[in-house]
Amino acid sequence: MFSMNENYLKLPGSYLFSTIAKKVAAYQNENPQVKVIRLGIGDVTLPLAPAVISALHKAVDEMAVKETFKGYAPDLGYEFLRSTIAEQDYRARGVQIDIDEIFVSDGAKSDSGNIGDIFGINNKIAVCDPVYPVYVDTNVMAGRTGLYDPRTGMFNGIIYMPCTAENNFMPELPKEQPDIIYLCFPNNPTGTTIPKAELQKWVDYALQVGAVIIYDAAYEAYISEEDVAHTIYECDGAKECAIELRSFSKNAGFTGTRLGFTVVPKALKCGDVSLNSLWARRHGTKFNGAPYIIQAAGAAVYSEEGKAQTREQIAYYMNNAKVIRDGLVSAGYEVYGGVNAPYIWMKTPQGMSSWDFFDYLLQKVQVVGTPGSGFGPHGEGYFRLTAFGSAESTAEAVGRIRTL
Amino acid sequence: MFSMNENYLKLPGSYLFSTIAKKVAAYQNENPQVKVIRLGIGDVTLPLAPAVISALHKAVDEMAVKETFKGYAPDLGYEFLRSTIAEQDYRARGVQIDIDEIFVSDGAKSDSGNIGDIFGINNKIAVCDPVYPVYVDTNVMAGRTGLYDPRTGMFNGIIYMPCTAENNFMPELPKEQPDIIYLCFPNNPTGTTIPKAELQKWVDYALQVGAVIIYDAAYEAYISEEDVAHTIYECDGAKECAIELRSFSKNAGFTGTRLGFTVVPKALKCGDVSLNSLWARRHGTKFNGAPYIIQAAGAAVYSEEGKAQTREQIAYYMNNAKVIRDGLVSAGYEVYGGVNAPYIWMKTPQGMSSWDFFDYLLQKVQVVGTPGSGFGPHGEGYFRLTAFGSAESTAEAVGRIRTL
Repeated sequence: MFSMNENYLKLPGSYLFSTIAKKVAAYQNENPQVKVIRLGIGDVTLPLAPAVISALHKAVDEMAVKETFKGYAPDLGYEFLRSTIAEQDYRARGVQIDIDEIFVSDGAKSDSGNIGDIFGINNKIAVCDPVYPVYVDTNVMAGRTGLYDPRTGMFNGIIYMPCTAENNFMPELPKEQPDIIYLCFPNNPTGTTIPKAELQKWVDYALQVGAVIIYDAAYEAYISEEDVAHTIYECDGAKECAIELRSFSKNAGFTGTRLGFTVVPKALKCGDVSLNSLWARRHGTKFNGAPYIIQAAGAAVYSEEGKAQTREQIAYYMNNAKVIRDGLVSAGYEVYGGVNAPYIWMKTPQGMSSWDFFDYLLQKVQVVGTPGSGFGPHGEGYFRLTAFGSAESTAEAVGRIRTL
Repeated sequence: MFSMNENYLKLPGSYLFSTIAKKVAAYQNENPQVKVIRLGIGDVTLPLAPAVISALHKAVDEMAVKETFKGYAPDLGYEFLRSTIAEQDYRARGVQIDIDEIFVSDGAKSDSGNIGDIFGINNKIAVCDPVYPVYVDTNVMAGRTGLYDPRTGMFNGIIYMPCTAENNFMPELPKEQPDIIYLCFPNNPTGTTIPKAELQKWVDYALQVGAVIIYDAAYEAYISEEDVAHTIYECDGAKECAIELRSFSKNAGFTGTRLGFTVVPKALKCGDVSLNSLWARRHGTKFNGAPYIIQAAGAAVYSEEGKAQTREQIAYYMNNAKVIRDGLVSAGYEVYGGVNAPYIWMKTPQGMSSWDFFDYLLQKVQVVGTPGSGFGPHGEGYFRLTAFGSAESTAEAVGRIRTL
């Protein structure tokens, strides 16, 4: 008789975003005339940039003609895209990444889950708290954790590193020694980040204790401050201890177009085995490449028009972030993030729980955000608003909250 | 200190297709003036159908406008595609599959590897021999096998089911009891298939011993004979024991466009847990949907023009198959497959080894195929030719082989 992967049963039944969707649907059902403004999910709303659209059309036309039709893509991704990434994302920042250290994929979510495949089951993982749920859930599914403790909201066997206003949302080096450390800067959900010197401390620590850092840089394009690293490889020694995940979802609006890449340096080794070779094997065996037309669209993001156009999109969202920040601050709320990331992380007023504040905002002003506790126990008492809405609805949402 | 997944080290170093590529490159280097004809890799060569191209352009235009722009897709895939699949691939064949039993993905290769995630590590797997290497390699990587034995060409702990001319390429029920059985019909690499009544025996067997069948139906569109099942769910009881993998790669030329789907019936249970819920969790956590524009293209495959156009493509490839079959038969070769699948599986002449015949064909007539032994030890003494080339080069290749 076959057996299932019992680790899946450790996951609590309800999903954060489906619970939110149900609550909003129920409210809207009872109040069909009311306009609800959604600043909850981190999905973009601006259409793809014209340069990307042109590249898509051109690539589609190539697929229509025998001479230019493309079948299976190269395992790691097309060289035209990987060499552009190596040049513009890395060499331009003084970082040497070889093109066979870059693996093009269907997005950072897949990669952040799949990367666990190349590690042993007994590694101890450390995550920030609050945290993007995929890091935790995929490790639960792989069997790298104990049971979920509903009293604490934590899984046994995971090292949680609190990130709260008290420590300026900068995780402290853990007391217990981890093997795999997940870091995401600029951070989802808090919208905050850490200075480059602080990131260097993590690299030094990982090298010292023999840990790997899985570095999620999906929000890199939103960095506005000088002393923030755009890639972890700006830190000395990072190529010996860090894997970097990158995404086209937020910097170019590819949430529904799907493209990302992962950097696994050849210098990152376990004994004498390079993790690069393991990931190459995984990539070639359990994945068959991102679509040619999407990779062509990805390359267009790096063209001069593509860069100018996507910079405008980011400026638009970051203006929303400023509107939310300024509006909430002037209304007396305690607000974080929104400077190097499209997320605003606010403290709930008067010690309300995250879910109580969710219900309060929905009922009183019909604004939907995400309860901080949904991202981990140290998210309790916080609330996330995203800057990905339209300028109009963002301004209206802030105006409504200010009436409270 | 972190640890890697040591199971990866069990995989032999050299890949079948990279070894072939190296040999061909070396030959071409030494003989730059010679035209090599490649009938090795199972990649399509005809451009995408006009109906698919139109749908792609239309979907790209939708992504260019705020009102029709699409962000994150629904977890399981767009309903417009899943309902079409349920209707045309299943209901039209008398099979009731609900749309929440269909999971749209980036292709059958990813799914055939990832599906292992929802099963326990201690399941014993059974595969046909020869076999599509992904089934074996992904189970090795997951730790479901012992070591590779270079003397036998087999991994310890896997049940290999020989498929040779002697048993008409129909695997026999294994003596040792498996937990997970991989079946692929029409078959890659042998190009053969089994009658529906024979498939029913496998379903009955799986139900009897409590095994799951992973049924790869990627070549379903090539079936030309009446008594061959297009889906395993045509067999009684299959919904309680089988997962079906489907692909757009070969029926619509999507090898470089990437789209597939997997059916996990709700009736398929481990104890009282439905595997459908586990796969839904996996799909929602470690995957973020196929691109909207690709899903729109997939739906166009089911339109009236799309069906007519892709039928023509298949007829073109199957004519190549006939040319190869007939040509080789009349030249005195023993030939299998090519009737319900785009692969021809030939016996090597005079007891040559698969690799010797590979070298012989390359050196003597500059035709590239795939050595049968690359697909498993019982592929030794066989050789695969694919029907995915152009009609011209296929005819020329056959003509060249006939000169030997």
